Amino acid sequence: MNHYKNLEDKIRGKKAIVGIVGLGYVGEAVALSSANAGYTSLGFDINKEKIESINQKKIKNLSALSNMSKLKKCDVICICVPTPIDNQKKPILKFLETALSTVKKYLTPGKLIILESSVAVGTTRNLALPLLHQSRLKHGLDFFLAFSPERIDPGNKTYTLKTIPKVVSGISARACNLAVKFYKNIADTVIPVSSTEIAEMSKILENVFRLVNISLVNELSVYAKALGIDMWKVIQAASTKPFGFLPHFPGPGVGGECIPVVPYYLLDDAKKRNLDLKMVKAATDINEERTKQVVNRAINILNHGRAKKNQRALIIGISYKPESADIRQSPAIIVWKQLEKKGIRVCYHDPYVKQVNGTESVSISKKQLEKQNLIIITTFHHAVNYKKIVESKTPILDTVNALSVFKSPYIIPF
Amino acid sequence: MNHYKNLEDKIRGKKAIVGIVGLGYVGEAVALSSANAGYTSLGFDINKEKIESINQKKIKNLSALSNMSKLKKCDVICICVPTPIDNQKKPILKFLETALSTVKKYLTPGKLIILESSVAVGTTRNLALPLLHQSRLKHGLDFFLAFSPERIDPGNKTYTLKTIPKVVSGISARACNLAVKFYKNIADTVIPVSSTEIAEMSKILENVFRLVNISLVNELSVYAKALGIDMWKVIQAASTKPFGFLPHFPGPGVGGECIPVVPYYLLDDAKKRNLDLKMVKAATDINEERTKQVVNRAINILNHGRAKKNQRALIIGISYKPESADIRQSPAIIVWKQLEKKGIRVCYHDPYVKQVNGTESVSISKKQLEKQNLIIITTFHHAVNYKKIVESKTPILDTVNALSVFKSPYIIPF
Repeated sequence: MNHYKNLEDKIRGKKAIVGIVGLGYVGEAVALSSANAGYTSLGFDINKEKIESINQKKIKNLSALSNMSKLKKCDVICICVPTPIDNQKKPILKFLETALSTVKKYLTPGKLIILESSVAVGTTRNLALPLLHQSRLKHGLDFFLAFSPERIDPGNKTYTLKTIPKVVSGISARACNLAVKFYKNIADTVIPVSSTEIAEMSKILENVFRLVNISLVNELSVYAKALGIDMWKVIQAASTKPFGFLPHFPGPGVGGECIPVVPYYLLDDAKKRNLDLKMVKAATDINEERTKQVVNRAINILNHGRAKKNQRALIIGISYKPESADIRQSPAIIVWKQLEKKGIRVCYHDPYVKQVNGTESVSISKKQLEKQNLIIITTFHHAVNYKKIVESKTPILDTVNALSVFKSPYIIPF
Repeated sequence: MNHYKNLEDKIRGKKAIVGIVGLGYVGEAVALSSANAGYTSLGFDINKEKIESINQKKIKNLSALSNMSKLKKCDVICICVPTPIDNQKKPILKFLETALSTVKKYLTPGKLIILESSVAVGTTRNLALPLLHQSRLKHGLDFFLAFSPERIDPGNKTYTLKTIPKVVSGISARACNLAVKFYKNIADTVIPVSSTEIAEMSKILENVFRLVNISLVNELSVYAKALGIDMWKVIQAASTKPFGFLPHFPGPGVGGECIPVVPYYLLDDAKKRNLDLKMVKAATDINEERTKQVVNRAINILNHGRAKKNQRALIIGISYKPESADIRQSPAIIVWKQLEKKGIRVCYHDPYVKQVNGTESVSISKKQLEKQNLIIITTFHHAVNYKKIVESKTPILDTVNALSVFKSPYIIPF
C-alpha cells in the first residue's frame, strides 16, 4: 500500500483526521484553523479545564480530549507542546519528548507528524526522528515527519494563522510536500524550505531579531536617560527614515513564550559547539537586567521622602503585551514578585487580566490610587483610564511611555 | 535690525546665499539640492580637484571654491565635513573644529549655521555653540545654530536627499524654524524635533540599528556554517514574516563612513560616562572581526593542495556596497591589505571602480581568472560576469552569496 499517495489524497480532499497535541496558544489556534478548514480535528491535552472550555464552544469538526489512544485515528498529527526553559535558562524538552513518545506509542502506518513547537536547530532530525523510529516504522514509507514553526502573534488582529505565511519543511521532500498540502488548506501562503534545519533556524532568527532589537533600545534608553534625553522622541525621529530602520521600543523587558525563551535554545546549542554568540548573549543579559532596573528604580523612588515600611505599589498592566490577556513570562509579574520580596505591598490593575494566581485585579478608584506610594505602568492598554491615574498625584513610574500626552510632576519616566 | 525676520524672509524667498563647507558625498548632494532649489550656492572645499570637477559641470546657481573668506557673503552655512575615526577608533574632530573655526572667523550678524556631519550627542550644543560664541556674536540674536543629520544613502535611486524625510533641530525654536524653512525648499518632508540632542541621537540610533543587525546575521552565519546550514536560506525564510522582522545579510563586514564609524562616537561618549553598551560593543567587535575571518578563510583555502609561495588572489567588488563606486572604509580593501601582508599577490576587479591608490581594476579575461589561486567575491555588482568566473574553475570564496544561482564544486560559501 502506498501510504504517501493515500495520505496525500486524504489531506488534499480534507478526509484526513487531524490530531493536535497540546492546546495552548499555538495548539488551540491550529485546532480551530484545522476544524474551520473542514478537517475532523481532535485536540489533545492533559488539562481538563482546557478541554472543557474548548468543547463548550461547540466548534464544528473539533473535539478536545485527554485520551491519547485516539491518536491512532489521526492521519495528521501536529505537535504544539510548550518548549520552555528552566530557572537556569536551560531548555525543558520533557513536554516535547513525552508528546513524541505518546505519538510513537500510537503510531500506525500512513501518518504525517508535524512539529510546530519552537526548538533548537536539528531537533526534528536528531531528536524527533530517532524517537519515532523506535516504533519500528520507517520514515518515508510508513510515516512522514515535518517541521513548521508557529508564528502566532497573540492579540494581533491583522495577522492570524490564516494570513501569516507558513514556513514548512520536511525530513524528506515528500514529508515536506504532505505538510505543504495540509497547510495550504489552512493558511493563505505556504513557504516550503529545503530542510527542517532551515525552518528551525528561521524561527530562531525571527525571535532573536526581536530580542536583540528590543534589548538594543533598552540599552540605549539607559544611555539616553543618563544624558537627560527622551528616548521615545529619538525613536520617533529615527522612524521617519523610510528604509533600513524598524522601530523597537524600550520597556520593562520582553515577555511571552518565544522572544525571551527561544534565544536560550540557540545559546544552549552554541555553547555545546564552543561558539560564543556575543550579540545574542548580550541581548538576553540586558533583557534579564531590565526588570531589576525597574525594581531598583521603584525602590529608589519609594525611599525618597516617604516612610520605608508598609509601602504600597500598584502595577498597571500585568500582561506581557498591550491589549492582551497573555501573562506568560510577563516582566510585570517578575517586577511584582521582586517588589514583594523587598517588603512592598503590591496590587495590580489590568482590564484584560481578571486574576493572577488567585490575586484579583483591583479597580482604580480615586481611593485606591491615593493610598498607593507608587504606581508602575508596565504595559499599555488603551482601556486604562490614565487621566485618573495622573490626577491621583501619586508618583508614577512609566516604563512604557503610556503617559506621553500628560504633563505632571508626578510622572517619572523610566 | 531683526536678523531673524530678515533671515527668515531671505530663506523663504530663496534670496539667501547658501554656503556648503565640505564637498564630499554629503556636501556635494546638499550643494546640488540647494542650487537646484534656486539658492545661489557656494561650495567650499580644500580639495582643488573636487572644486574643478564640480565647476566643470556648470551647474546653475552653484560654484565651488577654496577661498573661505567668501563665507562672509553666505546667509546659510551648512557644515558637511567628515567626522571619521582614527586607528584606535577614537573620534577625529579636527575637520569639524577647523570648519567651525573658519565659519566663526567670517561670522557676521544674520547667519544660520547648520551642522550636517554625524556627531556624538551634545556636540552641537557643547562644541559648536561655544566655538561660534567666541566670535562675540550672540546666538538667538546675531546667529542661529541648527543640526540636521544627513541620511544620504549613496547609490540609492529610490531615496534621495529630496525624498528622504529630513530631521531638523535647533539650539532654539527660532534656529530650528529657520532650518526647517530652508530644508522645506529642498526636501519633500521636514521633521522638526525638539532638541539638537534628539536629532543627533536619532542619527546614531539609525546607524547603530544597521550595525547591530548586520553583526547579528554575521554572528549567526558563523553558527549556521558550523551546522552546515545555508544562512541565506534561513534569512529568506524568516523574511516571509510580514511583521516584526527586517532582513539583513551576512558579508565581509560593513563599510562606508556612517555604519562602521558613528557607533564609535557613541561608544566613546558612553565610556566617558562609565556606561557599558554591551550590544553596541559586541556589534563593533563582530564587524571588526569579519574581515579577519575572510582572510583566515582565504589563507586556509590557499594552503590546501597548492604551493604556498607567490599565490594570487583576485578580489571581485572593491566598493563597500553593491552597484556603487564608493570605496570608503570598504572591507574589501581591508581584506586586500591583509592578504598582501601574508605575501599573497592581490588584484581586483570592479566595474564601478577604475582604480584604487594607483592600482587599476583588472579585466576578467579567461587567462586572468585561470592564473588566480583564489577568487574572493566581496561585493555584488550586477554588471560582473559571474558565469565566466565560475567557469574558470578557480576556487571562489563567495562572501555575499553572489553565486547562489550557480552550482559548481569551485564555489566555497563563506
